[in-house]
Amino acid sequence: MNLVLHDYWRSSAAYRVRIALNLKGLDYAQISHDLRKGAQRDPAYVALNPLGRVPMLDADGLMLTQSLAIIEWLEETHPKPPLLPGTANERAIVRAMAQLVACDIHPLNNLAVLQTLRRRFDADEEAVNAWIAHWIAQGFGALETMIARHGGTFAFGEAPTMADCCVVPQLYSARRFGVDLRKFPRIVAVGEACAALHTFDAADPARQPDADP
Amino acid sequence: MNLVLHDYWRSSAAYRVRIALNLKGLDYAQISHDLRKGAQRDPAYVALNPLGRVPMLDADGLMLTQSLAIIEWLEETHPKPPLLPGTANERAIVRAMAQLVACDIHPLNNLAVLQTLRRRFDADEEAVNAWIAHWIAQGFGALETMIARHGGTFAFGEAPTMADCCVVPQLYSARRFGVDLRKFPRIVAVGEACAALHTFDAADPARQPDADP
Repeated sequence: MNLVLHDYWRSSAAYRVRIALNLKGLDYAQISHDLRKGAQRDPAYVALNPLGRVPMLDADGLMLTQSLAIIEWLEETHPKPPLLPGTANERAIVRAMAQLVACDIHPLNNLAVLQTLRRRFDADEEAVNAWIAHWIAQGFGALETMIARHGGTFAFGEAPTMADCCVVPQLYSARRFGVDLRKFPRIVAVGEACAALHTFDAADPARQPDADP
Repeated sequence: MNLVLHDYWRSSAAYRVRIALNLKGLDYAQISHDLRKGAQRDPAYVALNPLGRVPMLDADGLMLTQSLAIIEWLEETHPKPPLLPGTANERAIVRAMAQLVACDIHPLNNLAVLQTLRRRFDADEEAVNAWIAHWIAQGFGALETMIARHGGTFAFGEAPTMADCCVVPQLYSARRFGVDLRKFPRIVAVGEACAALHTFDAADPARQPDADP
């Protein structure tokens, strides 16, 4: 199967999919769309991906969008190693952790939203950073509790899951925006366990071919 | 199985789960948390659901959070009738439609975000409504194209899916906030097809016991 990831090094959602592809041991090519220049709104790309966002995974011409839908598809088509645990009840917890990041934290601090805050509300950098820190701290507070209840070395148990695919990119963003992480020692420990794995390290924004020097 | 939905009539995410429970033919009790009064931040509730949001589904004491994780759990534990289509490629499309609503539209117009815009950026009602309309129009533009490609009577094909569970509550919000829907005839048609079904109609905010008179 020929896999091409439409990507951007600093996109948190694309970073999730890079981790998942690496955990599945799948080779993929990358096409970068520079979000700072609005390249994702190029008509040729929007014709394939109507929302004009990254990531999109081109799998033999099938155009897959939305990071968690892509990861579920990878899980169904390449079951080993699993990124979801073995029972429905456990899978519900892992998916809830992933969606806590993907629905309740990340959408409020992606680039398009921050640009809109600046444009519509004349928000300065201090106000934008406070906005980001507010949503990350609120979400991370809940995530820290979930990891205390269900986590081990990783966000859920002793092997990486879809939850870690979301937590690690969100932790990268939190650090980038200078969010105080001292209240979230379990999230930080999960991040360290993941960073020690080649699969996560190779997905790191700084390791991508389109990263700023 | 004893199902109790922690709910609020106007919550878009809770509305998704009500539809899914009805489509699965499952009986459930409801406990309302008045989001306008901040009831979801009550410590007894937060002890069960660390993020302090609705919905949460109590399934024989298992506390399930995040609307799409709950719907995936319902799909796995009560497979009939299916809310996801039969192939991995088709499921990826339905999940992408659901996540387009749940990750790219709804998080930007939920009550907590609108309250924060007012508080932090002194946004007046006109500015808040323009913010809401911006994100709904952007997301609905992409969704309209996806329905053109993959839809039929419903958002995907000829039977209700997880996508419709998300589209219908978002359409309700769009109307509530006065968003111009003339550019989205396919979304509106899907909404009409769904509204004709008892399963969707019974989940409508106005039909809930905690709705404003």
